[in-house]
Amino acid sequence: MNIFQKIIAREIPATVIYEDADTLAFLDIGPIIKGHTLVIPKTPYLTLAEAPEETLAALMRVCKIVAAAQMKGLGADGVNIIQNNGAAAGQEVPHLHFHVIPRFKSDGHRWNWAAKKYTDPSEMAAIAAQICQGLSE
Amino acid sequence: MNIFQKIIAREIPATVIYEDADTLAFLDIGPIIKGHTLVIPKTPYLTLAEAPEETLAALMRVCKIVAAAQMKGLGADGVNIIQNNGAAAGQEVPHLHFHVIPRFKSDGHRWNWAAKKYTDPSEMAAIAAQICQGLSE
Repeated sequence: MNIFQKIIAREIPATVIYEDADTLAFLDIGPIIKGHTLVIPKTPYLTLAEAPEETLAALMRVCKIVAAAQMKGLGADGVNIIQNNGAAAGQEVPHLHFHVIPRFKSDGHRWNWAAKKYTDPSEMAAIAAQICQGLSE
Repeated sequence: MNIFQKIIAREIPATVIYEDADTLAFLDIGPIIKGHTLVIPKTPYLTLAEAPEETLAALMRVCKIVAAAQMKGLGADGVNIIQNNGAAAGQEVPHLHFHVIPRFKSDGHRWNWAAKKYTDPSEMAAIAAQICQGLSE
């Protein structure tokens, strides 16, 4: 079992924020900002791709609840929702999870938001065509 | 109207990847990785907090579709889903949006994932108690 499955099974402790039949929310022990919460399904889907629509809907419902609680309870000024799929995207635990991260105007954290540029409109069109090819497969 | 509303109204162009009655997906012109797509509701909700559950479910359904298309069509190795609420969280356009970012093993991008630590279990418990207080308000 991965660490999240052990947390769900209460084999290892976690600081639980919210729980219902399908989902569990608990504090990340390595927070970007203190209060950083993980929202996971109890069923161990690997990534977004494996999870059914109703599970994703339930997870988003809980992310919204936790985000609102961080705003009200911690006085956060904003919230990041982040969900990483695959090691190349930074996923560390092989169990679908959403990060709900409270943000404060003066928290000092900056994501590395290094936006690139397309060389020209035809490059954009070519990339879009590839994605749309993937849509239809 | 903000830029996303103008895109929905077709007043300014966008490279559209997917569209249905409630949602629109199009390429971000400042991609973290080329192929970076924005998924938005056609109704101009500001953040997660304002959007009804059914809208969030629809947006996640489209994020899943776009992520799968990036994996298949671009050969991506992973995908980041990011949704920022509030200026403190890096939200730039005041219209709810999900970033769907294709990732490749050798893309060279690293998020600034600077995990902190809690000083002790009592600090974690105190933070959790504040969030749980926010839950019940």
